[in-house]
Amino acid sequence: MPPVGAALWRSLRAHQVYGANTDVGKTIVSTVLCNAIQSLKTPATAAFLKPVSTGPLDDADDRHLRRYASGTLTKCLYQFGEPVSPHLAAQQKTCMARDRILVPRDDELVASIHHTLSGWASNGVDFALVETAGGVHSPGPNGNSQADLYRPLRLPIVLVADSRLGGISSSISAYESLLLRGYDVHSVLLFQDDYYKNHEYLRTYFQKKSIPLVTIPSPPPRPQALGADAMARDGEAMATYYEQVARGTDVAGLLEELKAKHTARIERLEAMPGRAHESIWYPFTQHHGMAPTDITAIDSAYDDFFQTYRANPSQPEEGRLHATFDGSASWWTQGLGHGNPDLALSAAYAAGRYGHVMFPGNIHEPALSLAETLLQSIGNPRLQKVFYTDNGSTGMEVAVKMGLRAACHRYGWDASQEQISILGLKGSYHGDTIGVMDCSEPSTYNKKVEWYRGRGYWFDFPQVRMSQGTWKITIPDKMRALGPDLEFSSLSEVFDLEARVQSEAGQRYKEYIRATVENLVQEHGMKFGALIMEPVILGAGGMLFCDPLFQRCLAEVVRGHPELFDKGTPRSTPSATPQSWSGLPVVFDEVFTGLYRLGRRTAASFLGVDADVAVNAKLLTGGLLPLCTTLASGEIFAAFSSREKSDALLHGHSYTAHAVGCQVAVDSLRTMLQMERGGSWAASQRDWQCSSTASSEGSPEVWSAWSHGLVRDLSHGKQVDGVFAIGTVLSVSLKDSQGGGYTSTAAQGLQRRLAAGGPTFAVHSRVLGNVLYLMASVTAPAEALREIEGVLRAALL
Amino acid sequence: MPPVGAALWRSLRAHQVYGANTDVGKTIVSTVLCNAIQSLKTPATAAFLKPVSTGPLDDADDRHLRRYASGTLTKCLYQFGEPVSPHLAAQQKTCMARDRILVPRDDELVASIHHTLSGWASNGVDFALVETAGGVHSPGPNGNSQADLYRPLRLPIVLVADSRLGGISSSISAYESLLLRGYDVHSVLLFQDDYYKNHEYLRTYFQKKSIPLVTIPSPPPRPQALGADAMARDGEAMATYYEQVARGTDVAGLLEELKAKHTARIERLEAMPGRAHESIWYPFTQHHGMAPTDITAIDSAYDDFFQTYRANPSQPEEGRLHATFDGSASWWTQGLGHGNPDLALSAAYAAGRYGHVMFPGNIHEPALSLAETLLQSIGNPRLQKVFYTDNGSTGMEVAVKMGLRAACHRYGWDASQEQISILGLKGSYHGDTIGVMDCSEPSTYNKKVEWYRGRGYWFDFPQVRMSQGTWKITIPDKMRALGPDLEFSSLSEVFDLEARVQSEAGQRYKEYIRATVENLVQEHGMKFGALIMEPVILGAGGMLFCDPLFQRCLAEVVRGHPELFDKGTPRSTPSATPQSWSGLPVVFDEVFTGLYRLGRRTAASFLGVDADVAVNAKLLTGGLLPLCTTLASGEIFAAFSSREKSDALLHGHSYTAHAVGCQVAVDSLRTMLQMERGGSWAASQRDWQCSSTASSEGSPEVWSAWSHGLVRDLSHGKQVDGVFAIGTVLSVSLKDSQGGGYTSTAAQGLQRRLAAGGPTFAVHSRVLGNVLYLMASVTAPAEALREIEGVLRAALL
Repeated sequence: MPPVGAALWRSLRAHQVYGANTDVGKTIVSTVLCNAIQSLKTPATAAFLKPVSTGPLDDADDRHLRRYASGTLTKCLYQFGEPVSPHLAAQQKTCMARDRILVPRDDELVASIHHTLSGWASNGVDFALVETAGGVHSPGPNGNSQADLYRPLRLPIVLVADSRLGGISSSISAYESLLLRGYDVHSVLLFQDDYYKNHEYLRTYFQKKSIPLVTIPSPPPRPQALGADAMARDGEAMATYYEQVARGTDVAGLLEELKAKHTARIERLEAMPGRAHESIWYPFTQHHGMAPTDITAIDSAYDDFFQTYRANPSQPEEGRLHATFDGSASWWTQGLGHGNPDLALSAAYAAGRYGHVMFPGNIHEPALSLAETLLQSIGNPRLQKVFYTDNGSTGMEVAVKMGLRAACHRYGWDASQEQISILGLKGSYHGDTIGVMDCSEPSTYNKKVEWYRGRGYWFDFPQVRMSQGTWKITIPDKMRALGPDLEFSSLSEVFDLEARVQSEAGQRYKEYIRATVENLVQEHGMKFGALIMEPVILGAGGMLFCDPLFQRCLAEVVRGHPELFDKGTPRSTPSATPQSWSGLPVVFDEVFTGLYRLGRRTAASFLGVDADVAVNAKLLTGGLLPLCTTLASGEIFAAFSSREKSDALLHGHSYTAHAVGCQVAVDSLRTMLQMERGGSWAASQRDWQCSSTASSEGSPEVWSAWSHGLVRDLSHGKQVDGVFAIGTVLSVSLKDSQGGGYTSTAAQGLQRRLAAGGPTFAVHSRVLGNVLYLMASVTAPAEALREIEGVLRAALL
Repeated sequence: MPPVGAALWRSLRAHQVYGANTDVGKTIVSTVLCNAIQSLKTPATAAFLKPVSTGPLDDADDRHLRRYASGTLTKCLYQFGEPVSPHLAAQQKTCMARDRILVPRDDELVASIHHTLSGWASNGVDFALVETAGGVHSPGPNGNSQADLYRPLRLPIVLVADSRLGGISSSISAYESLLLRGYDVHSVLLFQDDYYKNHEYLRTYFQKKSIPLVTIPSPPPRPQALGADAMARDGEAMATYYEQVARGTDVAGLLEELKAKHTARIERLEAMPGRAHESIWYPFTQHHGMAPTDITAIDSAYDDFFQTYRANPSQPEEGRLHATFDGSASWWTQGLGHGNPDLALSAAYAAGRYGHVMFPGNIHEPALSLAETLLQSIGNPRLQKVFYTDNGSTGMEVAVKMGLRAACHRYGWDASQEQISILGLKGSYHGDTIGVMDCSEPSTYNKKVEWYRGRGYWFDFPQVRMSQGTWKITIPDKMRALGPDLEFSSLSEVFDLEARVQSEAGQRYKEYIRATVENLVQEHGMKFGALIMEPVILGAGGMLFCDPLFQRCLAEVVRGHPELFDKGTPRSTPSATPQSWSGLPVVFDEVFTGLYRLGRRTAASFLGVDADVAVNAKLLTGGLLPLCTTLASGEIFAAFSSREKSDALLHGHSYTAHAVGCQVAVDSLRTMLQMERGGSWAASQRDWQCSSTASSEGSPEVWSAWSHGLVRDLSHGKQVDGVFAIGTVLSVSLKDSQGGGYTSTAAQGLQRRLAAGGPTFAVHSRVLGNVLYLMASVTAPAEALREIEGVLRAALL
């Protein structure tokens, strides 16, 4: 089933009725509300939807509504016979199948609710209640908590609190469970019990949260007997009760408040782009010529989808919120889905246990667990120390400081007197703070920044892509010394570096690199302090897929030829230990490529190179909030050790190793490690293995969540210059007569096509010049990816 | 009452028993556990504590334990007669006053529990249960939720789940409410009900969280009648029930697991410093000579206190966790208390509603609300745009980029060809990324960083402090042109800038500044692109309290003399609008000083200067997680506007404007604004007003949470060179024959004295060379501050 838009219509005010517990009076409250809305001075039409009902049909809540709130449209989607939780009733398969489906899947249930509400919206219904079963976490038919299962709709909540002994606690806990799933509670109702007085306590409690609370009188006691007479008496008592409530309770005021909140929500969503246009200075955005219409209001997000607001005056009753695939994985951060309740709870737990704890001289469990988990799982025996910062840019600043210090320390250079540069690749990108901007060659990103001074040498490099059905490595024209372009039968073959490094191509790469460095040092007098690379894919520079052999050779040459960098160092200096660095410290920027973005824990593992410093961020927290780790070898660490405090790495941000980020990262990382161990990506791995003609034995595992067939087919597209996919990344380079690059507009047509969407949802994407890339969370459902693939095929083939 | 250590002893395993709801069998579970622990092969001693009991004395839970779990030590601290929630019982004042206090305050109750458990620990009790009343959020005697009220103890939880219909939901919600307060749930027990089968669902649920779940048979039904016979029969039935449970249920395995978790917790706390020493690279820390004993394990934190672990082999039964005042406010971030449940819920809500949403081209409610709230509340009409980053350092990088671009744009400078510098103050500090390091003069912090190149001129400046009972402004020797040192009768007088700027001192300051800049530009050929200052207090540079008149004059000279910076600009160029910048863009770094750290929303308001760019972080999120805002004027914004994308501010971090941070900031900011409006700091304000001999009318409001009497008295201390307090900051400069500075050790003795603690808690503090400063949250209780003041007086007077 496709994802649905969250439930919002202009004229239909739909709410979900959750109970603080079972048997707190949800249906009575619904009846009262539906009666009241029909009795307003300007009467409105009401509807009542019970998605899942359990218990005897005679007792069904929708029948109660029809009986006591006549005029109300009612519907029950699924009725189970046993008065137990729906997940048990479903197991007992006693479903009465009003809609001929025995047990609906969760997404079917959600889609069915959306469909029903949409129909009502089109038919002039003003007010609708969707009543849940039991308490907020009572399981739905498939065993998932209702609060989770209905979350994609994110209906505003009418919470029926519990007026009984203990009801204060269950009501507040239920409220908290709803909040941590991103629901908005618009009102609280409960029975007035003047002995326990829960309403008094709860009124004060919810007042502080600007949530109105209304009490209604307690209903008459349930009939003790089961005979027809007793039932009739009960019926009369209930009818009398509802009449009394209608006369004696001011629910009209509450309905006004609910209406005001509904209107305010829509008005705010409509105003947000304009307000943002006034007050927000967007990152990486030229505001000249930008209009409010270029800004999208995002109501909420769930799994891989944003809920974006669309005003459509011509179709006032169309649903206002649309599921839009987050095709950049929110700037490459998204891993475990938007609105992930487990991560929300992780964040809340750490916030509740610690808040923030200043880090120097202290240790807390989330920071230590994360450090240990990373060092253990990253699989690089060199890395022994974890330095925390807040984002990839600051983490790379730290990495640069580490590398430069270690080199200057070993070679005895005085960096205050001479310029120490870095070795890197053209198109590299390490962040926007000025120090790491200096690690990239002059480009659109940095050259107008007043204090930018590129400090380094950047190699051009051979690139990998599929073109016309074949994996190709294209050698830049100026690097013909590297040999001819290469072709491979599979991506695995490209990554078979143990074989390739011994080949003639490998030898040519190494000699080219060695000679270039020698020339830079000897002829141009450059001094280098670190080799800095994004392994495999250079992200922001344009989704450039570097021939992994070139990166491997770079590291080997740098490490194998220390004499290149300092004449005093004989070429044969053996490493003190296998973990020692040699030549230059090797720094891997895995901010984008690491932690399963390319399908593996590290991108370094594709190269078979253990870095001396490695930086992770983005996916580290599963896509929730900023955190960065810079991992370093013991030898790098030792370069800062001395009796002088001033020799230390005097770097630290206020929220270094903040407990919330570390806890979320621990839980994200464990989840992703479990997914790997549990074979979560087996289907994609099989898809890519089958496509490989190479023996799978011993060959590195290369796969993508995007199908191999798509990559092959798109590579034949007329507008397509090249395409590749690896892990959760898909990249399509379009032909551009202007030569491509960041300022190219070639990909904008395809971007617009994706934004228009497929059959069931739109796709939000980012372009880098002539490159359109798509990225998914590591949990993205295959069906969604296949639907997007369909749009791409339609657009490009 | 003093804060207590969290509850942890080596041999005593104490747990708190919470119920998913009332009437779920907490006391029966407690009885079963206490029986079982006494029946182990190696029997252990058990104790049961009911802090607050309601209902008839005959029914009291501790009596139930004495009857059915004989041998168990039992105690009830407060017994109320009515079987209602304790907050109602307390209102009815029917307390039976076993301990002769009618209604205990929450902190008394907590201290009393700690005292009781400590006594048991000393007397060889192995296992203790502290049973709550009702559900997790059932209010205690003063109306606060038990989950909040008992939180300082952070006992591991035995959660009694609900086996009835609806019990799945209430059990999970209760668990979530506990988790978001930072509790650890160590086990779940519930009655086995084979009709609803909640235990099956919950076992699977909790298994995923590694929490063992054990079922016990349901107890016999309650007696229907009230006579003595019925009671006797009930008694027999219960006795039989407990015998059956003891025979038929394997609770011993659970007790083993609880014991293992207890042991693991202590072992981990003991191992953490050593493990951290192995894996963590600490910020701002020289690791040479650092030992694991220099690292403090922090179990958790609450309000202004860390819970620090102390192993004490000589006193094995002493409490293991100690309340330690967070005297640096966790690197100046802390505002609303550690473990603040409201902020935890804010974070969880945003995480549940959005996760993270990539920002360019999108807008979501938390980012927009925060931007609008800041622009409205900050009170600077120049500021119109909000740029988001992750921390003060990145926010200042953005501010520098903004300032430089605006200046180069106006003056037509090509910064790629010539060096544009900044004007600042000596001792300034703006963060650790290399770009903003360059904004400070060479110092211990930066001079060994290989790529550091200070780019600016930094004025020395007159400093404010109280010495020998008098507020003094000391002019640096090399700046005698500014006149003699000054004395003031109150701090308000120091801040009476409208008068002082007109005075002779003001004229001298301005002339000195003008002449200095003129010389730098004309004689040394410098070009300046921005004036950058931390208003009032320069934090990391050594808690330097700059004469606000000097900062005011700096801004006035820069703005009043544009011709100084570019000859083409006539002196009299009128500003295009009152919001236009003139001379140089003025950038205020309020990362440390803003948002109530100095008692006001902005430190700029002390100077009467509206900056063109202002940066906030630290307190922005109330002390929870990283977020930074750079606010800019419309004219600064316009300097980046052009048809070229490459002219835009191409800066942006992945988690820019992350929803979790923005939501927490919105809620923190609103809370602090409400505190201001509600007069939360009135007592401190009165304390400082009374100390002022100046008329309070019209004079700026200057106050501190630290008492004026303390500042006055300490200023007479023999070792004290000077002292000041403002807002939540207290700073004591100690005499140092070596001349002070970052490498001074003069303050270490005082730091040790504070770490040894006062009567009830220790104080964690940070020193900056010869300066010891203390900082509190804006919610810090006066009693805690007075206790610390006592330690300072004892140490220094």
